[in-house]
Order: sequence, then C-alpha cells, then structure tokens
Amino acid sequence: MLRQGLLMARGLCQLMSNKLSDSLHRNIMKHLNGNTRSGYAWTSLQNIRAVTMSPWPFTPSQPRDYSLPNASWSSEMQRLYEHYNNMCEMETEGGKKIKGAWRRLPSYNRSLKYATGGQCLSKLLQGKARIFTRNIEEQGAGFEYVVFINKQEKTCVCVFQAGHLLEGPPGHVHGGAIATIIDSVTGTHATYLSGPVMTANLTINYRSPIPLGSVVLVHSSLDKTEGRKTFLSCQVTNTDGSKMHTEATGLFVSIGVGHLLGL
Amino acid sequence: MLRQGLLMARGLCQLMSNKLSDSLHRNIMKHLNGNTRSGYAWTSLQNIRAVTMSPWPFTPSQPRDYSLPNASWSSEMQRLYEHYNNMCEMETEGGKKIKGAWRRLPSYNRSLKYATGGQCLSKLLQGKARIFTRNIEEQGAGFEYVVFINKQEKTCVCVFQAGHLLEGPPGHVHGGAIATIIDSVTGTHATYLSGPVMTANLTINYRSPIPLGSVVLVHSSLDKTEGRKTFLSCQVTNTDGSKMHTEATGLFVSIGVGHLLGL
Repeated sequence: MLRQGLLMARGLCQLMSNKLSDSLHRNIMKHLNGNTRSGYAWTSLQNIRAVTMSPWPFTPSQPRDYSLPNASWSSEMQRLYEHYNNMCEMETEGGKKIKGAWRRLPSYNRSLKYATGGQCLSKLLQGKARIFTRNIEEQGAGFEYVVFINKQEKTCVCVFQAGHLLEGPPGHVHGGAIATIIDSVTGTHATYLSGPVMTANLTINYRSPIPLGSVVLVHSSLDKTEGRKTFLSCQVTNTDGSKMHTEATGLFVSIGVGHLLGL
Repeated sequence: MLRQGLLMARGLCQLMSNKLSDSLHRNIMKHLNGNTRSGYAWTSLQNIRAVTMSPWPFTPSQPRDYSLPNASWSSEMQRLYEHYNNMCEMETEGGKKIKGAWRRLPSYNRSLKYATGGQCLSKLLQGKARIFTRNIEEQGAGFEYVVFINKQEKTCVCVFQAGHLLEGPPGHVHGGAIATIIDSVTGTHATYLSGPVMTANLTINYRSPIPLGSVVLVHSSLDKTEGRKTFLSCQVTNTDGSKMHTEATGLFVSIGVGHLLGL
C-alpha cells in the first residue's frame, strides 16, 4: 500500500514534470525516492500545489492554469506580469532563446484527490474541494495572482490583484486575505527551496491597508535554513515599492511526502 | 461634509442598535460622538461589520444573517450552536426570561458602501464587494461560523465549520483560511471590548492540521489593554478541546470612526 502510493505519486510527478521548474521537481523527487517521513504534523501544504494540482487522471483535458493573464487583469497587473515573464526567457545576440533567471510557476485549483492526509473524506467532499486561493471561478472577483521565482537570488515575487470579494474594512482588503496570499507565496517559495514543507509560524505586521481592486507586489526572500527549518521574510508593497503595506516572517518545516499521501 | 458623514453613520448605528449588543453599540456611539481620529493607518476593520454590515438603506428587505443555522451545518455544529445560544437567554424560577452571560453576534456579507476609507472605489466595485468570510453564497462551501461573546468573562468563542472550498493541504484547511477566521474572531472581540480597531499584528503558530469539513472552536481571550492597544490570545481546538490545532496572538489598535468614513 505504501509502495503503491509512492509509485502513484512518483508517476504523477514524472507526468507533470514538464510543468515544473527543474529545481522544484528535483526537490519533490528527492523526497519521494528517499521515502523520508516526518514526525511533524503538517499544517499548510498548499505550496505543494505546483506539483499536485493537476486533476489528471480525473479529467481528460488540460486543467486551467490560473497564473496566466485573463480579461479581468488591470493594465498594471498585465504590465508587471510581462515585466517578470520577459525575464523568464532571454534572447542571445544570435537570436537563440535561453532560459532567464526567473521562472513563472503555474497554479491550479484542485489538489491530489486521493491524498487526503490520512483523513477519510467523503467522495463527494473530495470531488468538490478547491484550493482556497483559487475557489472562485469569476475572473477578477477573488485572488488574481502569479508567482515568479528567481533561482539565482533565491527570491520570489508575486503580482497580486485583490478582487471585490476579498473585502475586510470598507473598500479595503481583509487582513485574512492578506495573510492568505502571504502564506501561499512564502509556502510556495519554501517548497521550491526545500521540498515539501508545512507552515509552522506566520508573524504578520499590518502597516497600511490595501485598497480593494488594487495591484500589489508580494516579495519573499530566504533568511536562512537550519536543518529542516526554512526561514523566510515577506513584504507586501505597492507596485513601485514606495509604500509598505504588510511585513511578515514565515517558518516552514520540511516533511516527508508520506504525509501528503496519508500513509 | 464631515458632519453629514458622521450624522449618517450615527443614524445607521441607531437604526441598527436593536441588532447589536449594548456594549458594542455603546463603544461605537462613543467614538462617533467623540469624533476621535487616529494617526494610524487601519488595516483590518472587518471586525466592525457587526455594526456596519446591514445593506440598509440600499435594499428594502432585511439582510441575511449568516450566523444563523442552515441546512449545511453538521449535527456537531448545530449542537454547539445550541449549547452557546441557550446561554444567551436564561429562564428564572418564575418562568421569566432574562439575558444570560453570552450574546450571539449577527454577521452580514456587505459593508457600508459609502464608507470607502478614503478610496474612490467605482460604484460598480462598491456594489459587488462582499466581506471575505461571507463571499460564497452556497451554504456549507466556505466559512460557516457563529460568534458568541461572554460579557462577564470578556471571552469570545466561535463555532467554525470549514467548507470544501477552503482547501490547502489535500483534505485539510488552508493556513490562510485559518488565519482569516482567527483575524475575524479576535478582531470582532477587540471591537466589542475597545470600539473600532485595526489589526496591527497577528502571530500564528500552526500545531496540527484541520480536516476539511470538520468543526472546530476558536477561543479568544483578553490578555491586556494598554492605552489604545488591545492584546488578545486565540486558540483553535477540536470540539472537545483535547486537540490544539492553532495558537495565535493578536494586537489591535483603536482608531477613530472617521477612518471608516474616509473623512
């Protein structure tokens, strides 16, 4: 049973490897092959979704990649997307295209349905479950965001447009929605750096409110790693960096992939 | 303009006072009458929604109170609701009904539309905006919760059933959704104790994951107040209190109501 589960997970990773940055894929495969297990309870593995979010083999068609532009994106959101996306691929003097320092990470709205973390979820619940940040189908209403990773600098940036369903204070983004995008971005970054992780701590300082409908940048940077712990810092700023909205730190603990499969 | 805004807000508070606990209403009215203003930028005023969430005078009908039971509530959720709700009203030996130590707080999905925090939101955006924790119409799919306040003990408890659209790790609740319910409950509690506040800090320690679809209790208690600062502690446990899922602290800073109105 254990072996079957690991083989299924490995198979999924291999099938999806064309979607993944090499580094992220390598980290996940290392953990699968090592069959390491952790005594920690995991709390926030949403960051693993880059690996596991394809509904394959549950639907025959390609899943929607929510990190790609859509009609709801403002011109500022589109401009910033293009700014970072253009740095994902460079053109040499000879006209040859080569990989740049940045990678765009795809994003899906479903997790691996048979991996329930050991919980006996009903089939109905499993079929209906959606990733929290991608649970609204209406474009522009909820979290519109795209995450880019810089391999060399070990930094990560997310361009985030906050939709009208994320309201907290009148006309502004809910503190919980800000915490959510911070958890998602730093968790994705930690997974990229360290393989599967859980969120152990988030410390968030709210400096100034984010207007509903506006676009902000979420920056994540590595502070240090200590054994199985990855420490990250995060800043949410306006798009020219002149205004600090929120500052945070995150601590993530590496776990074995067995946790994902509920083995 | 300033006076007109304050009068409108005061009128709304008076009209809605029958919905509010006396203490919460008194605190808001004190701030309105005092016309106090704060130098702080506010970040998370979702806790003020108990006062401002009625869409009146924008719709003629009574708005839906999301804190009342619906068909999606599990038997455990319903049982806990009745447990606390029964303590909101006591019967004397003579058969007379008197107020108990607990109060149920109503909850709505819209904020005061003309109070945009100084932002020039488009009319379209204002009309479509919804409170983050109440943005999903499908019963049982998102955040199902009800908040009770104990006046005497200065504590607060929330019964929370996490719907299938709040997924993070496969089969479990997203860390951001947990942060969201913590921010909402502690923010509401701080508002009840201190009048309008903003979230200044949230520190969250994730101990063990929350299965999707399960019911948990969110407890909030007052640590101390220092001038305009209100310090709260929060624990998220399973329903019999034997398992700690998440521990957190929150710091909230009192603000003037002028912030709400964007004056």
